[in-house]
Amino acid sequence: MTNIKDVAKLANVSVTTVSRVLNKHPYVSEEKREAVLDAVKKTNYHINRNAVNLSKGKTFLIGVVLPYSDHPYFGTLLKGIANAALEHNYKLVLIQTNYQKDKEKEAFIMLEQKQIDGLIICSRVSEWEVIEEYVIYGPIVLAEKNITEQVSSTYIDHYQAFYQALNHLYTNGYQSIGYCINRKNGVSSQQRERAYHDFLKEKQIPFDQNYIFDGYLNFEDGERVVQQLKQMKKPPAALIVTSDQVAAGIVTCCHNLGLQVPKDLAIIGFDNQPIAKYMGITTMEIPLSEMGENLFLQAITREKVSQKRVNVQLIERQTV
Amino acid sequence: MTNIKDVAKLANVSVTTVSRVLNKHPYVSEEKREAVLDAVKKTNYHINRNAVNLSKGKTFLIGVVLPYSDHPYFGTLLKGIANAALEHNYKLVLIQTNYQKDKEKEAFIMLEQKQIDGLIICSRVSEWEVIEEYVIYGPIVLAEKNITEQVSSTYIDHYQAFYQALNHLYTNGYQSIGYCINRKNGVSSQQRERAYHDFLKEKQIPFDQNYIFDGYLNFEDGERVVQQLKQMKKPPAALIVTSDQVAAGIVTCCHNLGLQVPKDLAIIGFDNQPIAKYMGITTMEIPLSEMGENLFLQAITREKVSQKRVNVQLIERQTV
Repeated sequence: MTNIKDVAKLANVSVTTVSRVLNKHPYVSEEKREAVLDAVKKTNYHINRNAVNLSKGKTFLIGVVLPYSDHPYFGTLLKGIANAALEHNYKLVLIQTNYQKDKEKEAFIMLEQKQIDGLIICSRVSEWEVIEEYVIYGPIVLAEKNITEQVSSTYIDHYQAFYQALNHLYTNGYQSIGYCINRKNGVSSQQRERAYHDFLKEKQIPFDQNYIFDGYLNFEDGERVVQQLKQMKKPPAALIVTSDQVAAGIVTCCHNLGLQVPKDLAIIGFDNQPIAKYMGITTMEIPLSEMGENLFLQAITREKVSQKRVNVQLIERQTV
Repeated sequence: MTNIKDVAKLANVSVTTVSRVLNKHPYVSEEKREAVLDAVKKTNYHINRNAVNLSKGKTFLIGVVLPYSDHPYFGTLLKGIANAALEHNYKLVLIQTNYQKDKEKEAFIMLEQKQIDGLIICSRVSEWEVIEEYVIYGPIVLAEKNITEQVSSTYIDHYQAFYQALNHLYTNGYQSIGYCINRKNGVSSQQRERAYHDFLKEKQIPFDQNYIFDGYLNFEDGERVVQQLKQMKKPPAALIVTSDQVAAGIVTCCHNLGLQVPKDLAIIGFDNQPIAKYMGITTMEIPLSEMGENLFLQAITREKVSQKRVNVQLIERQTV
């Protein structure tokens, strides 16, 4: 493979001159510039960006760990990250994990081995201890409330948001309230579960394990939720659904079966995705795109860590 | 920064031995292995993957050019690509372009400068001549029917699929048919426009420029389409909508305004996304996830180019 020395030799100039021409520095005579460009053409030389990055110690790549790339929640978060990357001339390395620990580990190793300058974790299964091992290699940014302040994060307070949703249902006359999540063991689900138990205790409502619906993520999952509700002797009168996609699927399925929302079942979704607006679903708005932008900015900041809490807002529509 | 020579010196072994230990090769004595690991720890040495890639000439990164990351069409395509990447131990570099030519160009330069091993272009604005310049640097794979066979592609025949949709409406008694696209100048839109004109000519139906609705991509755009239709003296009786998202938005808006589908307006969508199934929308199914997987496999194949046409299937439901 041709290297810069070959080009310099053929053009009869120094390596420094070749470098100056290729990097468009001034102070090179027109004659030398032409000789270099001619030699570059003849030798079919081109810069190996990895070699340049190696010498500069920067890749202008930011890793993004996310479980799925085809879900609107992560899609909107990714849009925010990608728009900020576009603006700052960075590229993103997408590490889709399907929630596999070994795939998340690969992302940390990329940071350790300097293939990326920073890492954004949108959602994870790895323990905090694993992350802690890698913070010395570059910025690791989380979309969740941290246990420590060693890393930057942009997060929503799931405990508070969930409690607010519960309270809204309660003040609207609902006492038998269930909820529907994707991963019971996820970081945010644990915060929601705490809020749920605290709320029931405060209002002296008995706990019913069957009121927690676990493993629902997509629009088409809504049907499974409604089928389950139909088989219950005492189904909840209201549901908090942590994704508007699932909420929309539930509402659609209720309509198809002649069930009335909110009369037969009240629903609060999460995210405020376009579908919630157009189906008139009451929801807790999360500014995902802005979250993504802030996560990106934190990931390119080496000097200091920061924590930013993003506010969640109740959007009242027709399902409560 | 510590390099491999420092480690070798401290461990009192050769550089080759250090390399063997770090890459887990056999035939290293336990004693030497321990000395090396001890020296690695003391010097805080770690592999710089860019240096390794530089020497091997491979990055195990594939670039993915796509205009938006938060649209279900591209989300599902990306899912297919990402799942195949996961299986083959590659990572993806996401190049979100918002259809800006200079951002697409950056992707080509990444290939030229060996930051990625191959490039998948999901949708583009760059001219074919620009792509042609870069094919010598590595596999460039397109999600569209190529002009030449110099590059690999996985594509659907938009002309044929669109003609089939038109024919389905015609045989169901519709003659005044309009259509709704995202980008009039896009490669696929041009194929659809040809099919539209050929079809009208064959059936001797006069052409009406107002029946082409341009610039609609998302669920919320459906409302704008319906508002436009309401202002027309002679609106079309049927619409082909090239995204189920927009089709779902149109159907929802029709319901809200008391318009009956298909009586007042027949609709055929495209993609067969979950929302089309649950809203009972007749649609042209595109196997996006499988397309994504095949695009990935083509992008890691250096030796030969291939073209694969993916079949589109009409799914009959309740909107025609």
